[in-house]
Amino acid sequence: MRQTIDNIYNRKLNLILDVGRAFNSVMEVDKLLTIIASRTSQLLNAERCSIYVVDYEKGLLWTKAAMGEGRIEIPIDSGIAGAVALSGEIINVPDAYSDKRFNRKIDRHTGYETKNLLSCPMKNSSGEIIGVIQVLNRKGGAFDSEDEEVLKSLSGFAGNALENALLYSELKMTFHSVIEVLAATIDAKHHYTAGHTARVAEYSCGIARYLGLDDYEIEKIKVAAYLHDYGKIAIKDDILTKPDKLTQEEFSQMKSHAAKTTEILSKMHFSKQYKDVPVIAGAHHEKYDGSGYPVGLRGGDIPFGARILAVADVFDALTSDRDYRKAMPSEKALEVMRSDDGKAFDPDVFAAFEKYFKEELFVLEKDINFGG
Amino acid sequence: MRQTIDNIYNRKLNLILDVGRAFNSVMEVDKLLTIIASRTSQLLNAERCSIYVVDYEKGLLWTKAAMGEGRIEIPIDSGIAGAVALSGEIINVPDAYSDKRFNRKIDRHTGYETKNLLSCPMKNSSGEIIGVIQVLNRKGGAFDSEDEEVLKSLSGFAGNALENALLYSELKMTFHSVIEVLAATIDAKHHYTAGHTARVAEYSCGIARYLGLDDYEIEKIKVAAYLHDYGKIAIKDDILTKPDKLTQEEFSQMKSHAAKTTEILSKMHFSKQYKDVPVIAGAHHEKYDGSGYPVGLRGGDIPFGARILAVADVFDALTSDRDYRKAMPSEKALEVMRSDDGKAFDPDVFAAFEKYFKEELFVLEKDINFGG
Repeated sequence: MRQTIDNIYNRKLNLILDVGRAFNSVMEVDKLLTIIASRTSQLLNAERCSIYVVDYEKGLLWTKAAMGEGRIEIPIDSGIAGAVALSGEIINVPDAYSDKRFNRKIDRHTGYETKNLLSCPMKNSSGEIIGVIQVLNRKGGAFDSEDEEVLKSLSGFAGNALENALLYSELKMTFHSVIEVLAATIDAKHHYTAGHTARVAEYSCGIARYLGLDDYEIEKIKVAAYLHDYGKIAIKDDILTKPDKLTQEEFSQMKSHAAKTTEILSKMHFSKQYKDVPVIAGAHHEKYDGSGYPVGLRGGDIPFGARILAVADVFDALTSDRDYRKAMPSEKALEVMRSDDGKAFDPDVFAAFEKYFKEELFVLEKDINFGG
Repeated sequence: MRQTIDNIYNRKLNLILDVGRAFNSVMEVDKLLTIIASRTSQLLNAERCSIYVVDYEKGLLWTKAAMGEGRIEIPIDSGIAGAVALSGEIINVPDAYSDKRFNRKIDRHTGYETKNLLSCPMKNSSGEIIGVIQVLNRKGGAFDSEDEEVLKSLSGFAGNALENALLYSELKMTFHSVIEVLAATIDAKHHYTAGHTARVAEYSCGIARYLGLDDYEIEKIKVAAYLHDYGKIAIKDDILTKPDKLTQEEFSQMKSHAAKTTEILSKMHFSKQYKDVPVIAGAHHEKYDGSGYPVGLRGGDIPFGARILAVADVFDALTSDRDYRKAMPSEKALEVMRSDDGKAFDPDVFAAFEKYFKEELFVLEKDINFGG
């Protein structure tokens, strides 16, 4: 008998080890929350598992909605999860509706019927409570003390993993935000280019999505898009902000910004993910037929990301006001660009852009028009 | 008997759980390597534990030297660790010097005598080999098959933890490098300010170290230092690059860069660690006695980080050439600044600067002079 218990216990420990490792294999917050929830409810034989993240500044707990997008937020001093977050103690509730601390609003909101639940704090490596992990409706009756031990064990791994993922995603957000704003300062030198970089980044990511690229690739393209015009910092103000058409000499100086972008970006130490950013960013004026600059690269020799930027860049230029002409309506711009498909633009990229345009950009524009 | 074995096994599993959690509580690579090594050798009753990280690009394995700073590098096709990295299999060597694969050079280099060892691959979450974890000299004879199981278990946690830490540190390096280079483009507009930002960052971090700030705070100050002059992007080229002394009107325009720095940086989304960067960066011309700009803050009202930047900024200005004067020797600059101690500068910060100057900056300068 004792031996059997020990064997069962061994099996549990091995499962916990397995789950613990799985938690620490993910650095994206949303993916991590999904893995924690599914593996924990499985191991504890529960119908559901909710993970709440504590936001002390706002005094609330948030959790990803079970279905679809979005978050559910609850005040930190409400419900069982709130009590756990504030006390730091595990709470085992065999009958939810007879417990005064239980917040029935969430069930009313989700349509789910909570019978029993087990709720445990998640702590970071400094012992601070950063969240709550909660399993609902154990199949076969209320949670017991062994379940409590298992959940405590898992919550240790979950807390560390969540802390790491939050740190990583915050650093990434900071990185993106800082370069986006720094790059925008160059657009801001002339009123007609204000917002250009942010829009090119948005369009480029849209095209990349329609080309089926994954998040990892899309992020690289986003960073290259933010930085594609940074070489303009080397162009003199009077050329950069000249309201009239540029002379040939001025225009050739203006064109030097692309090579300058590569030159500046090549001094940066980019991690593996972003290694190609300098060559992508600096090649956004190359054309598919080889008639672009600064090098005159042709077709497949142009970095793929740069072929995406090229389409996004031209589309934004055509649909923005200039001192010497008004912005084109976007459908007109698309028509103009179509005549350059296969010449200036990679046909595959342009096809993805057309799809993206029809399904998202143009729809959005119509919505805005109706709203305005 | 069986029961005892099971109990021992339970204890082992619990210890593994504990160690696994510890691995995942650290995101700094060096700290993590130290924790993995100490906890693993403890659990496996080994004298030592070495962690090798695979660098496929360079075709080598590197490990932190056991004593002091620095790394030891070995070709990926050499030694037991190399064989493990290439095969992906655990290797148990009961007698090192009778195994042909064993590389005696490292022992000769370190003066350590390897008797037996157990070497296990570390894989990331995609199953790629990213390193090798190796325990040396089991107290009481060679490693057995149970040790192999324990090390395999630990290596799973170690692999995930190492991958996360490497990802995080690479992203941080990318972030720092990108803003350093972008900020330097503004210095580069005028030959006399080339390199200014990088030097101010270096001096500021030096002062912060002598003030006893921790790495977390120092990193924040470094980012603020990189960005402190970014507001100059809003200053017209002809003022920014004017070789002669500025008129009063031009000077007042020039001074607007500090407020402009805060304005630009306030648009960024900074994570918790870097939250104060905009106010620190924009206050580097505030003076301790309230006579600075843009606000005229006084004493403790000036963000602490800004009081550090102020000292670093003035020191670099004095020790750099200007169009209308040569650079001061650093000792002369220190003397000039001393008369401003308690007026322009926070006395505590200035005291730390003096220490830093004497123990590092001036020593370095003398070294350079002797070398040249």
